[in-house]
Amino acid sequence: MFIQQLEHRQQQANSLLCVGLDPQPDKIAALNLDLLSWLKALVDATADHACAFKPQIAHFAALGAEQTLTDIIAYIHQYHGDIPVILDAKRGDIGSTAKRYAEEAFVRYQADALTVNPYLGGDTITPYSRYTDKGVVVLCKTSNAQSGQLQDLVLQSGQPLFLQVAQLAASHWNEHNNILLVVGATYPEQLKSIREQVGDMPLLIPGIGAQGGDLADTLNAGLRADGLGLIISASRSINYAGSGDDFADRARLAARQLKTDINQIRAQK
Amino acid sequence: MFIQQLEHRQQQANSLLCVGLDPQPDKIAALNLDLLSWLKALVDATADHACAFKPQIAHFAALGAEQTLTDIIAYIHQYHGDIPVILDAKRGDIGSTAKRYAEEAFVRYQADALTVNPYLGGDTITPYSRYTDKGVVVLCKTSNAQSGQLQDLVLQSGQPLFLQVAQLAASHWNEHNNILLVVGATYPEQLKSIREQVGDMPLLIPGIGAQGGDLADTLNAGLRADGLGLIISASRSINYAGSGDDFADRARLAARQLKTDINQIRAQK
Repeated sequence: MFIQQLEHRQQQANSLLCVGLDPQPDKIAALNLDLLSWLKALVDATADHACAFKPQIAHFAALGAEQTLTDIIAYIHQYHGDIPVILDAKRGDIGSTAKRYAEEAFVRYQADALTVNPYLGGDTITPYSRYTDKGVVVLCKTSNAQSGQLQDLVLQSGQPLFLQVAQLAASHWNEHNNILLVVGATYPEQLKSIREQVGDMPLLIPGIGAQGGDLADTLNAGLRADGLGLIISASRSINYAGSGDDFADRARLAARQLKTDINQIRAQK
Repeated sequence: MFIQQLEHRQQQANSLLCVGLDPQPDKIAALNLDLLSWLKALVDATADHACAFKPQIAHFAALGAEQTLTDIIAYIHQYHGDIPVILDAKRGDIGSTAKRYAEEAFVRYQADALTVNPYLGGDTITPYSRYTDKGVVVLCKTSNAQSGQLQDLVLQSGQPLFLQVAQLAASHWNEHNNILLVVGATYPEQLKSIREQVGDMPLLIPGIGAQGGDLADTLNAGLRADGLGLIISASRSINYAGSGDDFADRARLAARQLKTDINQIRAQK
């Protein structure tokens, strides 16, 4: 069960940090290293501090690097078997097609969880959540500047759309108790209202680091009473903490620092 | 320019029919034919009747068949150069990632248009629409049974969410005049209100065929005065019109029949 696996790892490693894997060839080119070796070095260097890894599939797809994605996920499972892999692909399509995307993520790539888009409704979430041992991480309030253009629209009920998504995700869509939500760290107030809506549901939080979300505001708004419930994701600020041959050491230091910063705020709660 | 290319082809072929390409291995297995050969036969058989081809990427991704997708799109460009290719991938992510998905669709796969999801807002549409010669086909009202769970939610303005998407798509998001919308044939009333909202914008219409949308209702609700403005997409009803060695002939007949049915209704308008 993904959520149990995740929370076990969070406790074991005393870390809420999810390390994103966003390979950008222009930033790696100078290293004279193939993509898979770069990824393995990054994974090995940050694993001690990670509760999850999150490869972003667009960065692989743009390069035609599907085999590398397969290989790095298999590598994580083999050498860091306690650390779950969240495939960040934000899929969304009608049922018969969603079934094929679920096969892509869970069978082909052997991901432990997948990010998905809610715009098409509940019958397009079921093909993923039916894999009851996998996590389905539904976009709720995203970290980008114009996310409010749709997500903040106020419904006749008085609720913004993103809260309606949170409500559906916590009720109708969650029959297998394997739904999580994505909430951007750039919107701590909305995070607070989502936390109130969904009880103990774990939330994946991008937007710390390169995107400028505030860590203390985020943790204060979203942490559960048990100090868990959040997966704080950082990609670029760790992947590219260094640009030279010491990139892996720099990544380790950046991951350790962010983990420590998170834990200091957790300790104050 | 995608829309001009599309409408030129629609007039030249006197067809609004878009042939979807959804390879399902269990349905092809008995044919003793490799996937690319099956796709080429299908494309060649239906090309006379098609205004566009629409490969659905999930069906390729689940099989690890990225090279086949690359090859069939290249084949269409080479042998049926007048017929644009709409890559159906329903991508949606924050700007820096959307940029990579745009590279996947337009550079790697050389698609002429891409379907995208609007939930993340306008700054996640721009990375695609910036390719001004390409088409960006935004989900508006999808064909599935529960599409209304979010899309039909009524806003404080009194408008349903899908109409707000249509309005944004026709205004703020359309600075390069290369935005289209997806509207399911299963919702002709909503199609009518979308047509009223967006003026002459072309609409991609799935949901005819296997999904049961009514053709006459769809055309009456969505056709422009010039008899264009709709791209009527059918996949399974053409791909699997036959299950034996005559699959390509059956596909050709199914495509011709649907094109003819469409044109009979157009002629009555």
